[in-house]
Amino acid sequence: MYKVTFKFENSEDVTVFAAFGESLLEVARKTNVAIDAPCGGNGACGKCKVKLLGGELESKKTTHISDEEYAEGWRLACISKITADVEILVPDIASAYKSRMKMADLDSEEEVQIFENLKEQIAEVGIELKNNLEIIDLTMDVPTLDDTMPDNERLEWAVEAATGIEKVRIPYTVLKKMSHVLRESNFDVKAVIRRTSKDVFVYDLVPKDKEHIVAGLAVDIGTTSVAAIIIDMLSGKILAKGSTGNGQIRYGADVINRIIESTKPGGREKLQNAIVEETLNPMIVEMCREAKVSPEQIYRISIGANTTMNHLLIGVDADPVRMEPYIPTFFKTNALFASDIGLKVNPDAHIILAPNIGSYVGGDITAGTFVSMIWNKPEFSLFIDLGTNGEIVFGNSDFLMSCACSAGPAFEGGDISCGMRATDGAIEAVTIDQETMEPSYHVIGKEGTKPVGLCGSGIIDLIAELFRCGIINPKGQIVREGARIKRDEFGMGSYVIAFEKDAGSVKDVELTEADIDSFIRAKGAIFSAIRTMLSYCDFDISMIENVYVAGGIGSGINMENAVRIGMFPNIPIEMFHYVGNTSLAGAYAMLYSTESEKKVYEIAKNMTYIELSNVPTYMDEFVAACFLPHTDMSLFAEREGNS
Amino acid sequence: MYKVTFKFENSEDVTVFAAFGESLLEVARKTNVAIDAPCGGNGACGKCKVKLLGGELESKKTTHISDEEYAEGWRLACISKITADVEILVPDIASAYKSRMKMADLDSEEEVQIFENLKEQIAEVGIELKNNLEIIDLTMDVPTLDDTMPDNERLEWAVEAATGIEKVRIPYTVLKKMSHVLRESNFDVKAVIRRTSKDVFVYDLVPKDKEHIVAGLAVDIGTTSVAAIIIDMLSGKILAKGSTGNGQIRYGADVINRIIESTKPGGREKLQNAIVEETLNPMIVEMCREAKVSPEQIYRISIGANTTMNHLLIGVDADPVRMEPYIPTFFKTNALFASDIGLKVNPDAHIILAPNIGSYVGGDITAGTFVSMIWNKPEFSLFIDLGTNGEIVFGNSDFLMSCACSAGPAFEGGDISCGMRATDGAIEAVTIDQETMEPSYHVIGKEGTKPVGLCGSGIIDLIAELFRCGIINPKGQIVREGARIKRDEFGMGSYVIAFEKDAGSVKDVELTEADIDSFIRAKGAIFSAIRTMLSYCDFDISMIENVYVAGGIGSGINMENAVRIGMFPNIPIEMFHYVGNTSLAGAYAMLYSTESEKKVYEIAKNMTYIELSNVPTYMDEFVAACFLPHTDMSLFAEREGNS
Repeated sequence: MYKVTFKFENSEDVTVFAAFGESLLEVARKTNVAIDAPCGGNGACGKCKVKLLGGELESKKTTHISDEEYAEGWRLACISKITADVEILVPDIASAYKSRMKMADLDSEEEVQIFENLKEQIAEVGIELKNNLEIIDLTMDVPTLDDTMPDNERLEWAVEAATGIEKVRIPYTVLKKMSHVLRESNFDVKAVIRRTSKDVFVYDLVPKDKEHIVAGLAVDIGTTSVAAIIIDMLSGKILAKGSTGNGQIRYGADVINRIIESTKPGGREKLQNAIVEETLNPMIVEMCREAKVSPEQIYRISIGANTTMNHLLIGVDADPVRMEPYIPTFFKTNALFASDIGLKVNPDAHIILAPNIGSYVGGDITAGTFVSMIWNKPEFSLFIDLGTNGEIVFGNSDFLMSCACSAGPAFEGGDISCGMRATDGAIEAVTIDQETMEPSYHVIGKEGTKPVGLCGSGIIDLIAELFRCGIINPKGQIVREGARIKRDEFGMGSYVIAFEKDAGSVKDVELTEADIDSFIRAKGAIFSAIRTMLSYCDFDISMIENVYVAGGIGSGINMENAVRIGMFPNIPIEMFHYVGNTSLAGAYAMLYSTESEKKVYEIAKNMTYIELSNVPTYMDEFVAACFLPHTDMSLFAEREGNS
Repeated sequence: MYKVTFKFENSEDVTVFAAFGESLLEVARKTNVAIDAPCGGNGACGKCKVKLLGGELESKKTTHISDEEYAEGWRLACISKITADVEILVPDIASAYKSRMKMADLDSEEEVQIFENLKEQIAEVGIELKNNLEIIDLTMDVPTLDDTMPDNERLEWAVEAATGIEKVRIPYTVLKKMSHVLRESNFDVKAVIRRTSKDVFVYDLVPKDKEHIVAGLAVDIGTTSVAAIIIDMLSGKILAKGSTGNGQIRYGADVINRIIESTKPGGREKLQNAIVEETLNPMIVEMCREAKVSPEQIYRISIGANTTMNHLLIGVDADPVRMEPYIPTFFKTNALFASDIGLKVNPDAHIILAPNIGSYVGGDITAGTFVSMIWNKPEFSLFIDLGTNGEIVFGNSDFLMSCACSAGPAFEGGDISCGMRATDGAIEAVTIDQETMEPSYHVIGKEGTKPVGLCGSGIIDLIAELFRCGIINPKGQIVREGARIKRDEFGMGSYVIAFEKDAGSVKDVELTEADIDSFIRAKGAIFSAIRTMLSYCDFDISMIENVYVAGGIGSGINMENAVRIGMFPNIPIEMFHYVGNTSLAGAYAMLYSTESEKKVYEIAKNMTYIELSNVPTYMDEFVAACFLPHTDMSLFAEREGNS
């Protein structure tokens, strides 16, 4: 056994023992040392760079590491093998999956407005904005020697008197605190209850003179990112909003790698732990502080997530999801509580999972489809969610069909050397001067924020502009030279959008030909999926009247450019609408409005799922779409003139 | 801070730091070092003897420690204060509260017969011997690409088809294992279900070809002792039986001391931990091994326990139980599950608590009353449970009244210097030769087992015989001298029933005048309670037609002697019946038979509770009963002739 010491920039060393020949990435994972490895540890993405500080490692040099870097000690953890005692620096950039949790500024109009608009839309279609949680006042007689009814019966009587419902259910948590709260308040209390026609469930008991918010939590669990809000269940008001990376990312960037990881011994626990303990629970603590509620005041949770994320979250076997005949354990479940999976909120909090409809069309899509409102319109609409997987729903108030394609994490900045999520430092919009090839760009963040990388919308713009300026050809190859163009030893080119001196990072912010290739495959997957699904059902792109684009690609997405690169179909630009994180918005709707929840279930029930891999033309469509804009230029005829 | 090192005869040292002046017993408790202190640590009982091996202790000499013992280093932990670094031997006799867990030999006819008889009795009164747990066969279609229903829906359909009930509830534990079990068994399974008219709850899923027992656990949680059985829920058969001491005993011998201990910081958790983690969970593991089931196969639990034990078990505030107006948190609760309190069985196992009816008449009595069958007879009967508290129920098929008296742990051998429970080594029956004062006795255990102490029935016999032989007077004072009579320096006498050389212990087995006094007070409490309750309701002892005696006093109880010492009323001996541990038997009945469960609730609802301390004559009755047999000899007139 050899001693492996991990050193960090901002935390204490971790030392473990490993056997000869073990992979450094594996050793790190077993030790819960977070090293980002979106490709799952096969040497493809180059994100798991670590620095050898002492000792020895058997590690090949790859294209991801320059000679200079190699000389400095930089290695890819995934292809490094233990052969001796070794000391390793894990730089923050590698452990960056755990990107700093971000609290939204709720004073900003924009953040609040999204949900206000949603509430209006929901109300407009006649759906009640109301759930079955309430807070009621209860004043009881103080017990005496002549009135010795035990506390729980006294409470049951009071609840029955207040609600008219005979069956009152008092769970263990309330039983446990009851004696104290009743005496502290001299039997004058408020109770948080859930009322149905059959029974009343008592979630909590507080002294009557105490302010008490009945809170709920809505979460979007994406494969890459997680976003959540805490709301007041009685008013629907947003009390806190936060986002962070999905802690599972170190077990692979996409759902397939995560599932494979989860089938290893202890894997289910590891993956569940990464999302519950490492991601959601710390986020809940932060958000509760922001919202000024205690986690025990979160009485209900609603989650929008894809089928795999749902399975890994609740720790059930996800392997059948990826293996023919692709049978998940559940599409929907009604019997899940916070305490089951260790979410640190009120243990009796019911977890509403937006229903999945297939192995690759999950609750994020059914909830998102609800929010898009396409189910309520007579005209045909397309709903596209650009996550790590791309999911597409097409239909109207009469029918809904859906499909999924493996677009990869490129839209969220994954698999792109300088890719990042749409957050501070991300270049989100780009134009290029055709002559000088000099770029102009906009960086997310405060005035003067230096660029660190490119988010999805920035990449779309950059590729569209590179193409328009003739810097890249339809295959994505760089065909011009200049100050902004770099070539490596193999002649592979890249376009530098921000040189190191102008950047917020320690290297050039650039887009390589490999990045462009990745992105073209991603956009090709989306476009070919749309084409395949429509033609499979004898529809034509011309019949689409609205396209709702959702996902972490960023509100800065330039639809015109997205059409120009052949990502979206060639229809009038005014038909496109960016609708943001509809998984989170849908989770919010299901949380706050019981009728919305029912509606999502109804949508899921009526949605047809088309497995693209079963459609013979799909592969051809995909290959044809892996060009800029497409091998069939006629599909983008009118816009061609623009470029 | 001083270093305190606890040494043990059979386990590793424990070292902690303590402040100047801290009580050694307190330090031990904080460290979870088990030192028996039935009196709660006030120097009264003398059970917390430890030996000073090194260092210093400030510790007074008491009557519990002889000069010789003091010289050897023996001290009472409760009155010893830390003044320096110290090394302490905790002898096994002091940590003996955790008396070795005892597994019953189920091949013995007697053990099995108790429950067989009970089943017969229950059937005779027309109560169905049946509960709503079942195991059903389910064969499902194996999923294909054309039949992609998720696992849980497939299971729900199958359960609905098999039961005809539409609402099928699948909890998290089953959701978690479902994928694996279904595939392992090729979708051919057995399901453990609970069926009601409204829904089916699926507890478990196993491959069809696997033997699977549906087990249940019945427990009697006494203040001093705990007894339990594991049964087959489908046949009612006993699969394992075990008993042990209640681990809470180191926090006080009676309910009042335990409650006081539970009100200290962290006290509720400590007391709950002592019963759940230290007592029940290890016992469950042992019994499951015996029964050849896994703890997860225990799908239901039924508990007979007094009101305080119930409160401490589930960790709710017990303080109001002992404080005027004596209001418990609950008499009954229907919403308690194994996972709530950390019992390591199936997490969804419902806990049936036999209902309490007052702060001092608990579920052990309502369940025991059911078993006594006095509620089903026209004639008046008395049901007496001799636990650490004595509880008495009087009535017939028309009415039931109950009361409680604080008899102390004497009947179970507590508070008696050589007292012990009715287990191996206990003297359970005694006669004395009036002339020579030489005893004959019977010891529980295999032929040749040497006596270690006296259990309740042995103490009754010994006192009755000492009194009959004129060795003690009506006040319990020793008035004869001889080889068997010892006197200490203060002239306090004791009767040696087995000298050290004949005993299994390292000292004489004897009964001191102090012990006799304790026991007389205990028997006086019982007798005066019976008298007070009857006369309070204008009944007379002559109206009693049956007396059912339950409790840990032992099946060897000599009723004639119990009447002779004035513990039980003076009625014909054939009216007395020893009915064993009715709390456990009642828990068994509630577990196995849902109709019995309902009947116990009905009994509880109809039982009147009389608070003896509110009856003005009670104190006088008690004082009058603290003689042998009573100050009013006429009450025991006929039997007087015998002595």
